[in-house]
Amino acid sequence: MTNYLPIDPAVLAKCALYPQYIEAKLGFRNHWYPTLLSEELKEGEFRTHALLGDKLLLTRNGGKVHCVRDRCLHRGVPFSRKIECYKPGTVTCWYHGFTYNMDNGELSDIITHPKSNMIGKLRIPSFRTQEAQGLIFVFMGDIEPPPLSDDVPPGFLDADQEVCARRVEVSSNWRLGCENGFDSTHIFIHKDSPLVEGNDLLLPLGLVPTSRDTFEVVDNETGPKGVFDHLFEHCEPVFEGKVGGKTVLHGHMGATQVAYNISMWLPCGLRVMPWPGAGMIQFEFYVPIDEHRHFYFQTIAKKVGNDAERGAFRDEFRDKWVDLALKSFNNDDIWAREAQQEFYINDEAWTREHLFEADRNISQWRQLASRRNRGLQRKEHLL
Amino acid sequence: MTNYLPIDPAVLAKCALYPQYIEAKLGFRNHWYPTLLSEELKEGEFRTHALLGDKLLLTRNGGKVHCVRDRCLHRGVPFSRKIECYKPGTVTCWYHGFTYNMDNGELSDIITHPKSNMIGKLRIPSFRTQEAQGLIFVFMGDIEPPPLSDDVPPGFLDADQEVCARRVEVSSNWRLGCENGFDSTHIFIHKDSPLVEGNDLLLPLGLVPTSRDTFEVVDNETGPKGVFDHLFEHCEPVFEGKVGGKTVLHGHMGATQVAYNISMWLPCGLRVMPWPGAGMIQFEFYVPIDEHRHFYFQTIAKKVGNDAERGAFRDEFRDKWVDLALKSFNNDDIWAREAQQEFYINDEAWTREHLFEADRNISQWRQLASRRNRGLQRKEHLL
Amino acid sequence: MTNYLPIDPAVLAKCALYPQYIEAKLGFRNHWYPTLLSEELKEGEFRTHALLGDKLLLTRNGGKVHCVRDRCLHRGVPFSRKIECYKPGTVTCWYHGFTYNMDNGELSDIITHPKSNMIGKLRIPSFRTQEAQGLIFVFMGDIEPPPLSDDVPPGFLDADQEVCARRVEVSSNWRLGCENGFDSTHIFIHKDSPLVEGNDLLLPLGLVPTSRDTFEVVDNETGPKGVFDHLFEHCEPVFEGKVGGKTVLHGHMGATQVAYNISMWLPCGLRVMPWPGAGMIQFEFYVPIDEHRHFYFQTIAKKVGNDAERGAFRDEFRDKWVDLALKSFNNDDIWAREAQQEFYINDEAWTREHLFEADRNISQWRQLASRRNRGLQRKEHLL
Repeated sequence: MTNYLPIDPAVLAKCALYPQYIEAKLGFRNHWYPTLLSEELKEGEFRTHALLGDKLLLTRNGGKVHCVRDRCLHRGVPFSRKIECYKPGTVTCWYHGFTYNMDNGELSDIITHPKSNMIGKLRIPSFRTQEAQGLIFVFMGDIEPPPLSDDVPPGFLDADQEVCARRVEVSSNWRLGCENGFDSTHIFIHKDSPLVEGNDLLLPLGLVPTSRDTFEVVDNETGPKGVFDHLFEHCEPVFEGKVGGKTVLHGHMGATQVAYNISMWLPCGLRVMPWPGAGMIQFEFYVPIDEHRHFYFQTIAKKVGNDAERGAFRDEFRDKWVDLALKSFNNDDIWAREAQQEFYINDEAWTREHLFEADRNISQWRQLASRRNRGLQRKEHLL
Repeated sequence: MTNYLPIDPAVLAKCALYPQYIEAKLGFRNHWYPTLLSEELKEGEFRTHALLGDKLLLTRNGGKVHCVRDRCLHRGVPFSRKIECYKPGTVTCWYHGFTYNMDNGELSDIITHPKSNMIGKLRIPSFRTQEAQGLIFVFMGDIEPPPLSDDVPPGFLDADQEVCARRVEVSSNWRLGCENGFDSTHIFIHKDSPLVEGNDLLLPLGLVPTSRDTFEVVDNETGPKGVFDHLFEHCEPVFEGKVGGKTVLHGHMGATQVAYNISMWLPCGLRVMPWPGAGMIQFEFYVPIDEHRHFYFQTIAKKVGNDAERGAFRDEFRDKWVDLALKSFNNDDIWAREAQQEFYINDEAWTREHLFEADRNISQWRQLASRRNRGLQRKEHLL
Repeated sequence: MTNYLPIDPAVLAKCALYPQYIEAKLGFRNHWYPTLLSEELKEGEFRTHALLGDKLLLTRNGGKVHCVRDRCLHRGVPFSRKIECYKPGTVTCWYHGFTYNMDNGELSDIITHPKSNMIGKLRIPSFRTQEAQGLIFVFMGDIEPPPLSDDVPPGFLDADQEVCARRVEVSSNWRLGCENGFDSTHIFIHKDSPLVEGNDLLLPLGLVPTSRDTFEVVDNETGPKGVFDHLFEHCEPVFEGKVGGKTVLHGHMGATQVAYNISMWLPCGLRVMPWPGAGMIQFEFYVPIDEHRHFYFQTIAKKVGNDAERGAFRDEFRDKWVDLALKSFNNDDIWAREAQQEFYINDEAWTREHLFEADRNISQWRQLASRRNRGLQRKEHLL
């Protein structure tokens, strides 16, 4: 059972620019979310996964991924406590033999009572799935799903690229993931990263805005909705870090300019390009597990012309980028998010934080997300 | 401190057939409950025990068991932190020497202030005890206790039998213990048990009711109150388990018919006969510890004619039945109850479960328990 | 985040003699409290400390101790997650380079945005500090601090003595620390202590008051406010412990009379003299960490005439008194407080305890503390 409590109205009133974002502890409903990596679910296997406070059961049957809530209607037990599958594409509850179709959740048989009137009349919640770029996406919601392309950053689904991915659990609310990733000046925490030195990156310590128009909101009726951070183009980069008028730190004046195009997309996807080096794009997703944790999906995409190039990039990803970028560099992001959690676990934090000039893109993201999400995940959805 | 919270009235309204049962998270007050095994409390020893959210201190003095609340009146500390007993049948608090009679809870002496006006004027709660069939029963309540025979399944107190027992802590509410034990079609979880195969038991996979009158309620003014499950006599047993019209499983067509007489009794006792084999009866008790845990008392009774037969059955119990029945077989029941706890920890679960045709005895049990219990254990009783 | 909840008004009404004391779960605000030992914070070091539910960051710069709240204004992260100090007397947040003066909390620089309008306009809470007798005191509050001498027991600051100290975390509310220490008849728990036997102390089992005027309240406009316990001078000491009229225990009739002068002082200081032997005084402080824990400061003071005597007492403290008095003897006090915590975690405990005749000094202490504290530490102070 989640501890999800309603937000104090006084807090929402103070956050009048983005009230739904403040309420979205458990994430936004009626969106597509990455869950498992495709390679984590082989034919005939079952896997559980937590998403927006709910508990899911996934299986792969005839190549297709099915997803239902991991809870029998009868007495509420999780199927996953002891998976029983007597026919591909079904799951049988270990307790009384209630058997469900994995594709639509229908109660198709009850082994202990094959003549029960309940057969064919009840369903467990089932969720649409879609695989793309090596990820299994689940549509957590009740409405007719829009195309997946509306819920991922532009370019993520491009066919002429290889996308390599990993995922890791992070002990912070998902919104702290989004904001850490999209935050321009958090580069300060990366000042000593081996990635910066080793790859001769140009990485300032900070960015002084030279305009208030340092962002661009993409908010069309169809297609993905997001915010571009243009601070990099409208700033004086800070290469000399000063305290009390004295220079105490230096940014890294490398030859390789990276990450000058950063954007954040509903429901929880970030695009950083180029990154972690020229010719590559890092797409990230901060997927709510519950109010205290998120799955951090890290993917790197590279344009490829043929299978040999695909294979070569997969090798490079495995041998170089996982350690240097996704672990060494991004681990600093992970502990930074976790260090924020104790403060933001208290809803009043959203009224007590002090955003500064370089955070205008964060505020725009909150407003867009509050305005354009397709619904709030509420405690009631989990009953 | 327990987290016991009041039930939402909307939930009680939806459970109008058995509202008190839904409220009885901590169990029913003013009933007899088994606590320790007699052999666990030797002359002069002290033992603590948790019952219905309360903390008890038991001792044996001159053969008789005494039971008081394990908490000094003065500053609320548990005596059991450091037992001091300077006279049999008393306990002295280690903190300030407050000394109580264990039989009635009276404050009889204060060692640090032998002239205090409080001496003889205050009492800690004390509880009636009774030993039977190797178990120490405690009456958790305030009224004059009815006979123990009203609070155990019929036959449990019969003199011409040997009753062997063990107890184990289970991490689920006590009601899930009762319902798992009394549930006819939960036999599905036992389909692969070594007990079934090794003892050539007749054990179907399920039971299709052929009548709606598959139970009998015993609800007389005096004597035990309970529900008999007669489904076994009014059913088509299921020996072929089917999914999608195809047989996928088989029940066990053994020669030994067992467990055709099952009944559930207030406050928390089950009787299964014959079980685990011919000539034996299994009596079980699901005794509330707090809202999240219960003690599972497992006893097997067998008629005996003399001491040699008593001793022989004790040996058989220890050498055979503990491992084969109480551990191997019933361990499946234990994890089944624990697997339900996450769902039922939320009070709304009682309105969201989907009982099916074979659960009519469960519903009758809930109604009887709601109607005929002698009171609810409430948070206020624990202050 | 602390779980500090408001007190039920019905409880406060029943505790009408000392309502603020009952509310003071987190301690009293606007008082001086010992935090670290001076030796625990060396020049240039940073240390965190928890006090009255708040999280503090302390450093020493040019010998002087500075103390601020350990939380950046921007996104609420603790500086202590990764201390960055680029100029003595400042701390720089690892996340975005927000830099604060440690002496007054002023935001003096933002490394990532040196031109931000926020610079010089915001402050984190900073707290006055003072060192005395080897302890670092922090003034937890908002008002102009009174002199430290108002918040420690009389004599603690005397210059002609050596004060040796240690501190240990105890898992009970701070008030249970105060009351355990000031409680006359808790000597009962020390009846078997090696300190008593080994140093030939006179230690009765209890004390029967021979007057109701066994205390003296010191409640002047200026100076420390406290309560003297005079029970020892107005009592019949109990050397024969009796149960049911029969002597079952004996107090220790040693030659050395100790601890005949005991007093308790706002906000949380105890003075016991002489103790643990002739010519010494034990000063103790029970400093709130949060509502469930306190730091127990144990100090022993001895008059000294020169540096040689200072050194000799430091050696004696380290080699003898730490083990014999502060550990062996006082460990019984520590577990006694912890054994009370489960009862007093429930606010209603204050209405359900049963104080007896020897507890009059406790009641006076509660009344004085309720009447003369300088404010309550509330959840709102921690936001």
